[in-house]
Amino acid sequence: MAKDMTLWWGSGSPPCWRVLIALEEKNLQGYNQKLLSFEKGEHKSKEVMDVNPRGQLPAFKFGDIVINESYGACFFLESKFKSQGTKLIPDCAGSDNNCALIALIMQRVFEGNTLHQKMVDVFMYNRRVPENERHESAFKRLKETLTTELQMWEGHLKKTPGGFLAGENFSMADVIVFPSVALLLRMGLSEDKYPKLAEYYKKLQGRPSVKATWPPTWKETPGQELLKDI
Amino acid sequence: MAKDMTLWWGSGSPPCWRVLIALEEKNLQGYNQKLLSFEKGEHKSKEVMDVNPRGQLPAFKFGDIVINESYGACFFLESKFKSQGTKLIPDCAGSDNNCALIALIMQRVFEGNTLHQKMVDVFMYNRRVPENERHESAFKRLKETLTTELQMWEGHLKKTPGGFLAGENFSMADVIVFPSVALLLRMGLSEDKYPKLAEYYKKLQGRPSVKATWPPTWKETPGQELLKDI
Repeated sequence: MAKDMTLWWGSGSPPCWRVLIALEEKNLQGYNQKLLSFEKGEHKSKEVMDVNPRGQLPAFKFGDIVINESYGACFFLESKFKSQGTKLIPDCAGSDNNCALIALIMQRVFEGNTLHQKMVDVFMYNRRVPENERHESAFKRLKETLTTELQMWEGHLKKTPGGFLAGENFSMADVIVFPSVALLLRMGLSEDKYPKLAEYYKKLQGRPSVKATWPPTWKETPGQELLKDI
Repeated sequence: MAKDMTLWWGSGSPPCWRVLIALEEKNLQGYNQKLLSFEKGEHKSKEVMDVNPRGQLPAFKFGDIVINESYGACFFLESKFKSQGTKLIPDCAGSDNNCALIALIMQRVFEGNTLHQKMVDVFMYNRRVPENERHESAFKRLKETLTTELQMWEGHLKKTPGGFLAGENFSMADVIVFPSVALLLRMGLSEDKYPKLAEYYKKLQGRPSVKATWPPTWKETPGQELLKDI
């Protein structure tokens, strides 16, 4: 199966990293992969555009099937390889306990999109907004919005003992959200102000699927300080 | 089952409407519901905040289970009531045809988030950005980004004959994306410039789950023209 799959990805991108982790967790090692450079604009190359007309990474093919959306690829892999590797979403029918767990996983998975978006809004403000449209007040507001969001996740982790986002077991919530948390820490998030997120980050760092897919560019360059004060 | 469910919702909100449609499609009529007013700030009321600390609608409870994220609620309902009502996501294991279909549904479901976000970015620019931070160039850029996105969806609908977003059958892709398409048309999107989206809108309008959940405030007030020129 794995040899019929190809993933085009970029180092340090949470959407790419999610799919890399899902592939490891579902024991799909041996897939074809192409590590591309965002800096060189390789995500806009013809090779990528032919698979993903949005010119974004990840791009993912499985035989003739194309599924580029990172959430979609992770859900697809769980559906196709339900009983292989880590069970990322339990079955619901019949068990009320599992139903409560699925609901919690889904809640965190999709709240993860909000966390990611609020983080990206801060990163992109300086990069994308033209000089003549920039306002310190707008940038400050984006940082405050991210702070509020991060405090919510501190609260989530306090409420679900077990060390994973949905309790005692690694789940789809961790596949989806961990890469964003790792990027937040990499960008200077204070371990003192966000102790539960820092603890979660350290716990997951040692997991084989996470170690095997750690962004190669992060090993070569130091972290940054953009989020030091939030 | 349905009598153990409560949905707090607001009229015309695509995230709320998704859940309303999913409940209809899964034959869960008879759930408790509270229609709240965004204008009166009822989504920030204690009653809502107790269920959804984000102070957003929808808020959704099923017994003791809380699942407020609209994508999450729809996926949860499909998982819990897999063999009841419309099958919104087929089973994959064993059937290659179904696998290709699941991949397409997932691709559209999560691209739907991008469509929705780009639409909301246009709506919110005037409402949320303070006067002294506004720039015509920034607003123009948001509208151009939405135009590019809409052209992509025109292309999607051309490539998947059958009239639904993932081909010949109504699926989770329609549950998630239709409310955003309907809101686009309501806000003045040109039927001449986007004929496939307009055709899709008209086709789905007659579906019982859509008719039963049509935003009550839309019946009382005329549409708008904000998107007339995009």
